[in-house]
Amino acid sequence: MTNIKNRRWVLDHYPEGMPGEDTFRLEEDVPIAALGDGEVLVQAHYLSVDPYMRGRISPAKSYAASIEPGQLMVGGGVGEVIESRSDKYSAGDFVETMGFGWQEFAVLGDRGLNKVDPDLAPIESSLGWLGMPGRTAYFGLFHVANIQPGETIVISAASGAVGQVAGQLARNHGCKTVAIASTEAKLDWCKEIGYGEGVNYKTEPDLAAALARVCPDGIDMYFDNTSGPIQDAVMMNLALHGRIALCGTISLSATFGQPDIGLRLNRQLLINRARMEGFLVTDFAAHFEEANQALAKAHKEGNLKFREDVMDGIANMPKAFIKLLNSENFGKQMIKI
Amino acid sequence: MTNIKNRRWVLDHYPEGMPGEDTFRLEEDVPIAALGDGEVLVQAHYLSVDPYMRGRISPAKSYAASIEPGQLMVGGGVGEVIESRSDKYSAGDFVETMGFGWQEFAVLGDRGLNKVDPDLAPIESSLGWLGMPGRTAYFGLFHVANIQPGETIVISAASGAVGQVAGQLARNHGCKTVAIASTEAKLDWCKEIGYGEGVNYKTEPDLAAALARVCPDGIDMYFDNTSGPIQDAVMMNLALHGRIALCGTISLSATFGQPDIGLRLNRQLLINRARMEGFLVTDFAAHFEEANQALAKAHKEGNLKFREDVMDGIANMPKAFIKLLNSENFGKQMIKI
Repeated sequence: MTNIKNRRWVLDHYPEGMPGEDTFRLEEDVPIAALGDGEVLVQAHYLSVDPYMRGRISPAKSYAASIEPGQLMVGGGVGEVIESRSDKYSAGDFVETMGFGWQEFAVLGDRGLNKVDPDLAPIESSLGWLGMPGRTAYFGLFHVANIQPGETIVISAASGAVGQVAGQLARNHGCKTVAIASTEAKLDWCKEIGYGEGVNYKTEPDLAAALARVCPDGIDMYFDNTSGPIQDAVMMNLALHGRIALCGTISLSATFGQPDIGLRLNRQLLINRARMEGFLVTDFAAHFEEANQALAKAHKEGNLKFREDVMDGIANMPKAFIKLLNSENFGKQMIKI
Repeated sequence: MTNIKNRRWVLDHYPEGMPGEDTFRLEEDVPIAALGDGEVLVQAHYLSVDPYMRGRISPAKSYAASIEPGQLMVGGGVGEVIESRSDKYSAGDFVETMGFGWQEFAVLGDRGLNKVDPDLAPIESSLGWLGMPGRTAYFGLFHVANIQPGETIVISAASGAVGQVAGQLARNHGCKTVAIASTEAKLDWCKEIGYGEGVNYKTEPDLAAALARVCPDGIDMYFDNTSGPIQDAVMMNLALHGRIALCGTISLSATFGQPDIGLRLNRQLLINRARMEGFLVTDFAAHFEEANQALAKAHKEGNLKFREDVMDGIANMPKAFIKLLNSENFGKQMIKI
């Protein structure tokens, strides 16, 4: 297998604000290292494109170390084992990992891999509803915010990978759900999968007033995938003992690493005795099986639909990523290799 | 007793920004209503002056309804029952209530009163360490933030009524404590009662850097009595899984009701998987006895000191309140009648 050549994207330089295609550099004809004990060679079938990647290409402190210029871009992927020196995986097995990288082939240790059963669901589901985004939705709703039937739940980036799962899980739990998204087409899709209400943050002249109309009893829980002015508008409608689960800050993509100046919302939290909490899916690793079972059950019962936005070919990775940061994707963004 | 005349402060008008003495109006020779069944007439010995009162003289939404111009100013007090038509209290009993009002005499229903034992502690303690401020400190530390021995706890308005109790309870619990206050005299007092470190927010040119020096492992819990730029500086030093208990926003006194523009700290919460939560002492009414016992025990063991800033006479109520909002008090502000 050593005659296989790899193609991969490395970081060219830290971008100021919104990344461009020249933020990354494609390396071709990269030789593949020989396998060590416990390692497998995996050929990517799907690579994941996620908002968190913006934080990794910044020198600003984040929850994980930045990658440096010249290094392989980080990212999740699912693919097929084509060579193995592991006793856990054999050629022909499908595996998923958040540590795949933006590349066609990866040499991976067998300890960070998750086996994927292609008969259970299409393998790309392991990057979406049955993977990191789906579990993120589950933990944010049930572990961080402890949502209750009858509560009003507002979700930003509502048709995104995390948002669409969160909306359906909350609906399945007996909550009233409100989607915030950037286009009417996205909001239509949100309604189709079961969101009760939808608000277009690009066209509403007064987002806080729009939310007040659809949430007359206030917002009990906000699943925040965006931060920024959308959060401000939600906070103006917070219900007593509201909870805000901070999942992402994609609205800051264009100004990433710079101070975020805007409304400080301490009085809203104080008045409503509300709680705002940041969380990472990986903090809940001990509960992944619980989440997987809940997600698989909802899907099997027909109560969890999932929309993917698939582009073809590794050459498109930067394009797909920038599309995502600009909110131009429609559903979970990934690349088919 | 009907020949007694009352003196009381009513709200004259909603102030813009910092209140002035003309925000209030003293009414003299006010007749006292005859007692109804279950009511007592109480003569004030001490009246309480607290930051929350700023929120009550604003038309902006808060956790309690605003009072209207012409109405009696709200506030806590402790005094002696001088006439009773209640079977719970007799003349000579001492009682405390948050519903006393800025007045020398109050006709009060017997259901909202707390009996005060003058042999247990000086009666004014029921407005301080053994009352609302002391319990607020207790619930913020132990119920909201669940502090643990060895953690680093930062407290703003550290020598104030809530802050000085919080600092000592955290120290008693085995935490490292850092006081933030406005003068060296206040910081000296904080050290004297057991705070480990102190930072002067008025003279430090870079508060975030100063906190970084005294909190090299980050801040596990912030007891926020102030909000504003002090909070920003704390957030820049947040430890993983930090908790911020939002108790007060006294730094906003001069701009109360206006939008608070500044750093938005979502990335800090997200990166550190931290939690920010607003709370009110009255939400924990079911646990008051637990708090009282803990406070009394600490005091009895010599591990809870308390400094009061007492002015004389009801005529000084507005002056004492404005002094408090300007951080010119030193210890729990109250008025002796």
